[in-house]
Amino acid sequence: MTPYIRPHIVSMAGYVPGEQPQNVVFTKLNTNENPYPPSPAVKEALVAAVTDRLRLYPDPVGNTFRRAVAKLHDVEPEMVLAGNGSDDILTIITRAFVGAGDLVAYPTPSYLLYSTLTQLQDGREKVVPFSHDWNLEFETFGGPGVKLAFLANPNSPSGTAFTHEEVGRLAEQLDCPLVVDEAYADFAAPEYRSVSLVRNHSNVIVTRSFSKGYSLAGIRLGYLIAQPWLVDHLMKVKDSYNCDMLSLVAGTAAIEDQNYLAETRAKILKTRDRLASALRQRGYSVPDSQTNFVWATGGRPARPTFEHLKEHRVLVRYMAYPGYPDGLRISIGTDAEIDRLLEVLKAEP
Amino acid sequence: MTPYIRPHIVSMAGYVPGEQPQNVVFTKLNTNENPYPPSPAVKEALVAAVTDRLRLYPDPVGNTFRRAVAKLHDVEPEMVLAGNGSDDILTIITRAFVGAGDLVAYPTPSYLLYSTLTQLQDGREKVVPFSHDWNLEFETFGGPGVKLAFLANPNSPSGTAFTHEEVGRLAEQLDCPLVVDEAYADFAAPEYRSVSLVRNHSNVIVTRSFSKGYSLAGIRLGYLIAQPWLVDHLMKVKDSYNCDMLSLVAGTAAIEDQNYLAETRAKILKTRDRLASALRQRGYSVPDSQTNFVWATGGRPARPTFEHLKEHRVLVRYMAYPGYPDGLRISIGTDAEIDRLLEVLKAEP
Repeated sequence: MTPYIRPHIVSMAGYVPGEQPQNVVFTKLNTNENPYPPSPAVKEALVAAVTDRLRLYPDPVGNTFRRAVAKLHDVEPEMVLAGNGSDDILTIITRAFVGAGDLVAYPTPSYLLYSTLTQLQDGREKVVPFSHDWNLEFETFGGPGVKLAFLANPNSPSGTAFTHEEVGRLAEQLDCPLVVDEAYADFAAPEYRSVSLVRNHSNVIVTRSFSKGYSLAGIRLGYLIAQPWLVDHLMKVKDSYNCDMLSLVAGTAAIEDQNYLAETRAKILKTRDRLASALRQRGYSVPDSQTNFVWATGGRPARPTFEHLKEHRVLVRYMAYPGYPDGLRISIGTDAEIDRLLEVLKAEP
Repeated sequence: MTPYIRPHIVSMAGYVPGEQPQNVVFTKLNTNENPYPPSPAVKEALVAAVTDRLRLYPDPVGNTFRRAVAKLHDVEPEMVLAGNGSDDILTIITRAFVGAGDLVAYPTPSYLLYSTLTQLQDGREKVVPFSHDWNLEFETFGGPGVKLAFLANPNSPSGTAFTHEEVGRLAEQLDCPLVVDEAYADFAAPEYRSVSLVRNHSNVIVTRSFSKGYSLAGIRLGYLIAQPWLVDHLMKVKDSYNCDMLSLVAGTAAIEDQNYLAETRAKILKTRDRLASALRQRGYSVPDSQTNFVWATGGRPARPTFEHLKEHRVLVRYMAYPGYPDGLRISIGTDAEIDRLLEVLKAEP
């Protein structure tokens, strides 16, 4: 028996993030980081913010940042909550809505953190399986006792997405908040983004991240957009100073440089299409992606290919969800990185 | 009725941090920030870390930082957990040990966040009153159903502290973890610091902050020291990437510049003694402080004095705990800031 620790936490495995090698240099295509650096404007703003002011606490709610987010999405600042990465946002949400024994609905295969967050609250999981062509039966999400639903949209590992009309239909069927986790939405076509739903659907919460589109995984920043009364309550759950001064500055500068986002995004989408074609030519099944990664199944057995790539210092993510073919989730790197990947793939004995 | 939100959170007030004015310039002596800037080595390290690498995720557990902390305290890196401010650490701890209905013991008057964290977990509070000379009856902390105890040591708002022998005696009486919240320990004499207890007391968890001694409230960084098996379980509760790349770099550089800490600390202690004497001369009761603030009661009525100071752009913290005299908690500023405070105090009509 482990003393002190709550029993459901003792028995938990905990979430295991993708490998983050600190010393060996890999062609790193395993955790969907952006291959392009952050905007020069962001780096400039960060350096300028390294002043004596760091001795002071940050603005507890990050109002300058909230105003920038609100302007970008044409909502009110009161509809924005900033978080220490979108994982912090997802944690705050789960703590606000889910108690011991409560049901949390989410699809599989999808982001495994939803399960971890539910377990941490001692909740119960209602897992809704994707069909093999990545559709969902929305009717099976809700039901008695469901207190929260997560939808990664676009989804990982599939890279697929539902339109905001479809997401709206799902929200209307639910008697609980629907978290539309848009970590990858910066790479999706506009019809797959759901912020516009928030105004007319009081149960929709859209979350965003700076780790992917804005090339800022290292600074930890995310936000949610929801009705102001929901934001008010979620404020009570967050840590008082959950976002540091530097990340708020970086996030504000990143949002204000939409041209840079558009440029790097365009390059990534082009490389993505090229990679998807090359993989399909090699016999892989690759769903059309709305993200900065592709999901490759079929073709050669995934596990040995993953090992072969790793041996040659190319790191991708091997994923095996029960009941689904295992596969490789490959982040979209630079063209040179994807060339290297394809070269090593071709050399597999 | 508020839909969706868990009822105990709807009825919560939430923690209210001290004012952080973003635009008006105050002599800011209200949230115990360090009046001196961070070490030049920290600023240098931060600027050097603003690189393209910010596109990558940080080390999930911050091993370089953990090694620096471990070396400082002569413990093993496996005994260190890094957090997004020590509030993140306190949140992780509470989630790991406290479920609905569980008792959490802590003293009053003390850090109000302990109450908020307990409420968020739907726990129950066992509040242990300080005597009017800032002593505690340790026997009253424990008992059936108590799953966690907090002791801010040094304490806020009193500034007083127990020796590590006394803290050890308290730990031995408890059947639950004792969190020794040492946010202010950098200003305390060595006999008031309890890290040495961790090795022989499996229920002691010591937490530290970079917000006070290291002048880094703006970057959000803290850590805990506990037995390795406890750290292993707490790792499962924290967000995967709870500390960003820049704060880990800043924290490591700060720890490695102990000379700077010693210099700024010495200045603050000298100013603290001067302020305490001046306040006592003005008729205030001021307990001997082991922190970077003093607690002044008696003398003139506290609320009007607070308002008078604020009117003259000097911000201190007015605090009123039921059953205790209300008072002013005054952070130790630079000598010039304290001169300004004393001047405005003298001018009170």
